[in-house]
Amino acid sequence: MRSAAYVGDQRIAIQTSEPQDPAPGQVRLRVAYTGLCGTDLHILHGAMDARVELPAVIGHEMSGTIDALGDGVDGWSVGDPVTVMPLAWDGTCPACLAGNEHICQNLDFIGIDSPGSLQPLWNVPASVLVALPEGLSLTHAALVEPVAVSVHDVRRSQLAPGEKAVVIGGGPIGVLIATTAREFGGDVVVVEIDPGRRQAVADLGFTTLDPTADDQVAWVEEWTGGAGADVVFEVSGAAAAVLGATALCKVRGRLVVVAIHPEPRPIDLQRLFWRELTIIGARVYQRQDFETAVDLVARGVIPADLLITSVVPLDRTADAFAELGAGRAMKILVDVQSGADA
Amino acid sequence: MRSAAYVGDQRIAIQTSEPQDPAPGQVRLRVAYTGLCGTDLHILHGAMDARVELPAVIGHEMSGTIDALGDGVDGWSVGDPVTVMPLAWDGTCPACLAGNEHICQNLDFIGIDSPGSLQPLWNVPASVLVALPEGLSLTHAALVEPVAVSVHDVRRSQLAPGEKAVVIGGGPIGVLIATTAREFGGDVVVVEIDPGRRQAVADLGFTTLDPTADDQVAWVEEWTGGAGADVVFEVSGAAAAVLGATALCKVRGRLVVVAIHPEPRPIDLQRLFWRELTIIGARVYQRQDFETAVDLVARGVIPADLLITSVVPLDRTADAFAELGAGRAMKILVDVQSGADA
Ligand SMILES: [Zn+2]
Ligand SMILES: [Zn+2]
Repeated sequence: MRSAAYVGDQRIAIQTSEPQDPAPGQVRLRVAYTGLCGTDLHILHGAMDARVELPAVIGHEMSGTIDALGDGVDGWSVGDPVTVMPLAWDGTCPACLAGNEHICQNLDFIGIDSPGSLQPLWNVPASVLVALPEGLSLTHAALVEPVAVSVHDVRRSQLAPGEKAVVIGGGPIGVLIATTAREFGGDVVVVEIDPGRRQAVADLGFTTLDPTADDQVAWVEEWTGGAGADVVFEVSGAAAAVLGATALCKVRGRLVVVAIHPEPRPIDLQRLFWRELTIIGARVYQRQDFETAVDLVARGVIPADLLITSVVPLDRTADAFAELGAGRAMKILVDVQSGADA
Repeated sequence: MRSAAYVGDQRIAIQTSEPQDPAPGQVRLRVAYTGLCGTDLHILHGAMDARVELPAVIGHEMSGTIDALGDGVDGWSVGDPVTVMPLAWDGTCPACLAGNEHICQNLDFIGIDSPGSLQPLWNVPASVLVALPEGLSLTHAALVEPVAVSVHDVRRSQLAPGEKAVVIGGGPIGVLIATTAREFGGDVVVVEIDPGRRQAVADLGFTTLDPTADDQVAWVEEWTGGAGADVVFEVSGAAAAVLGATALCKVRGRLVVVAIHPEPRPIDLQRLFWRELTIIGARVYQRQDFETAVDLVARGVIPADLLITSVVPLDRTADAFAELGAGRAMKILVDVQSGADA
């Protein structure tokens, strides 16, 4: 079979290998689709070389079916449609013992710290499997992982029905957060600087703001009757967005930092103090987020067909990354089964 | 009577005036003691000139007795020992309507935005009175307001019994937070750079760290079995302290920002994300914090005699500010009744 691997020097190479039998406690998955995301792009750009072992078969947003069961695996059958919550924890660190296994202090993020789903037959621990319902297309199901991220982010925000939320950044994660927040009963506006992305967000029925043209603070004041937003999601990764985000929050409002900010960012702590704001970090997801995400995708709440820009064969994975890196695509899926023939 | 007023140009002047009758809904207080705090010092240094009207009789940490009742005031008697929660809200803004009157968007902080307690007879709305128990000395009772700040900060942190807390900054508020957190069942360490203050904190039975000598991160790791602190209180106001504070927090730990940071401060959002931290702003107090504070002072939990560096007559208020500004004092009280004679 063929797989797509990051081989260093900002390069993806197609390599061949023999499928392995699943070890005890593992299942072998027949991977249908793998979505590419910003983290994969970071890996390709060399930003995570300390974590990956070359050649690195990456990919962690996937759908597929069970191909074979290892010894001791109960409750699953060959042919079952599944996705994967790609986290493996040690179960023994202080975070795990406190019930926060999803951010274990020694977390193995499968697809980064260990091999991922850009290979037609992929062995994973049975513990990471998440069942997919009958009738859910495997293309749509490849979106479950990023949707689970957005569900986790919205859950961390404690958004209540009727609350007003500002999403700063209208890329894939921003759109998913906006969609999830709206489904949870929130009233949502999306701030996006790129005209094309802004139009795409507007086409999904969201009010949008252009941060270069609109006075966001005045707009949010007016929108909220002088209160400020209940929740702000910072998804852009821009320093200016973080600095300005606190000004959008109501008294006791919450700012959820979703984007990766590799450098320390100036924060308006005077405003944090004055309005008793809360700034919340949110990372990956917990199992209940995955289960909610499967439900949101299966019920058609997530506009999957609009979000999936293209589906490309495995051999074109490098081109797919180039398109993703150019910022023109929302979500690109790799048809991994196209690599099943040696 | 004589009162102490900020008259601009970093000056305090003693002025004379006639006592006024309390208006309907007001009481006239016979002020016993007024504590001076960092906010008063900011006012004296001109940092809050936009908020004060000159000459400004300031002061908001006080104890005293009721001298006269205005029309329509029920439930209080002349002679009752009281302190004041110095907040007046409009009751109509979005923050008030949401139940957060203490940080009303149009808050009148009595002693800053309106006249304060550095005058022997002081008229305040009856709504701000807080009863003091029989037998509580009025010197100790002058500490209730700063203790209420610390109670509010600890309550905002959601500190649970048995949790480990780091207090960065061992000045008056840091010591009160440490004392309150310990009383609430927390295990507390205090970080303080000044040797004299550090010794004073150690004398109160707290473990202390010297940030210039100790590796705080390694120390906290060891102390917490590799987990990190449950709660960190940033009371120092130093940029470096804020930047380093997130490194002390456990997975899902809370950082409470108590100090005033007039400039935006760099925050390690990568760490916030990675460990799903929460940064919490805390400002002033609510009535329940005042009631808890009265109880803590009355039961002797607060080491009042150790905290009160000196008691000075009203005519020496300017000298008291000079001593406070030099950073040598914990808490200085002004004996306001010494100004009762014209
Ligand atoms: Zn763990
Ligand atoms: Zn109000």
